[in-house]
Amino acid sequence: MPNIIHRIGTTKATPEQVYAAISTIDGLTSWWTTNINGESKKGGILQFRFSKGGPDFEVIHMEPMKRVEWRCVSGPLEWVDTHIEFDISIENGETILLFKHGGWREEVEFMHHCSTQWAYFLIGLRKFLETGQGTPYKKNFEPISEWSR
Amino acid sequence: MPNIIHRIGTTKATPEQVYAAISTIDGLTSWWTTNINGESKKGGILQFRFSKGGPDFEVIHMEPMKRVEWRCVSGPLEWVDTHIEFDISIENGETILLFKHGGWREEVEFMHHCSTQWAYFLIGLRKFLETGQGTPYKKNFEPISEWSR
Repeated sequence: MPNIIHRIGTTKATPEQVYAAISTIDGLTSWWTTNINGESKKGGILQFRFSKGGPDFEVIHMEPMKRVEWRCVSGPLEWVDTHIEFDISIENGETILLFKHGGWREEVEFMHHCSTQWAYFLIGLRKFLETGQGTPYKKNFEPISEWSR
Repeated sequence: MPNIIHRIGTTKATPEQVYAAISTIDGLTSWWTTNINGESKKGGILQFRFSKGGPDFEVIHMEPMKRVEWRCVSGPLEWVDTHIEFDISIENGETILLFKHGGWREEVEFMHHCSTQWAYFLIGLRKFLETGQGTPYKKNFEPISEWSR
C-alpha cells in the first residue's frame, strides 16, 4: 500500500521537545491545526478540525521520546484505517523526526495533496521547534492550493 | 515501487507560466537550484547541482502546457533510473501541478528526506508563480535538516 513519508531534523530541539510537540494537544496545535479536541493517551481519541471537518484518530502507541502512532477512525474516506507514525531519533547530534502516513489504498490526487500539505505542516513544526512559531491551520498559514483553504 | 507524490495549485498562474517554470533552465533555477546546466529539450541532459553534487536527468518527454518527464541517469545512487513527472491541468479555474518522483527501490530514510525537500521546493515554486520569488537552493533557502545544507 502506498505511503506518504517525510523527514525533518533540527539541532535546536531535544527529543523531549519534539515528543511534546507530537504527543500533547498544546504541541499539536502549534503546528498542525489550532482546533483539536480529545485525549492524547493510549486508547484515546484525538479530533483534528479544519474548515470542512477533519479526521479522528485513535492513539495506538505512545513511547516517550521515541514514537507516537495513531489510527484514523473517521474523517475523509481515503484516510479511514490509515496510520500516522512519528519516530524520533538522534543522528550526529541532530534530532530527527521521521513521519509516515501509511496504508493508503490508492495514489489518488488527494494523496498527492496530503503529501505536500503534511510537508508544509512538518516544515512548520521545525520552525516552531527553532523559533517558537509554527504555521498551523489557521495561524500564519499559507495555502498550497485551493484545497488547503 | 514506492513513489514521492505532491500537488500544488494556484489561481494566479496559467498553464503556460507553470510549463515555463518546469521546462526552461531560467524557470527551474527560480525554484529548484540556481546551479543548472544542460539542455531542456527531448533527449537533452539537465545537470542540477547542490553543495555535494547532484543528479543528471535525461529529458524523456516534453508536451507544452501539459507534461514534462525526466529519467535520472546519474547522481545519488538511490535516484539512478528513477523518473520525475510533472503534469499540469486546470481544475475549476485553478492551475494544478501534479508531481511524481517515481520508481524508488525502497522507502529508505533518504527517500523520506527527498519527499519533504521536494515539497519545500514545490511550495517555493508556488510562491515564485504568485510573487516572482521562489526559495531555490541556495537563495532565500531554509534547510529542513542538516541534510539540506
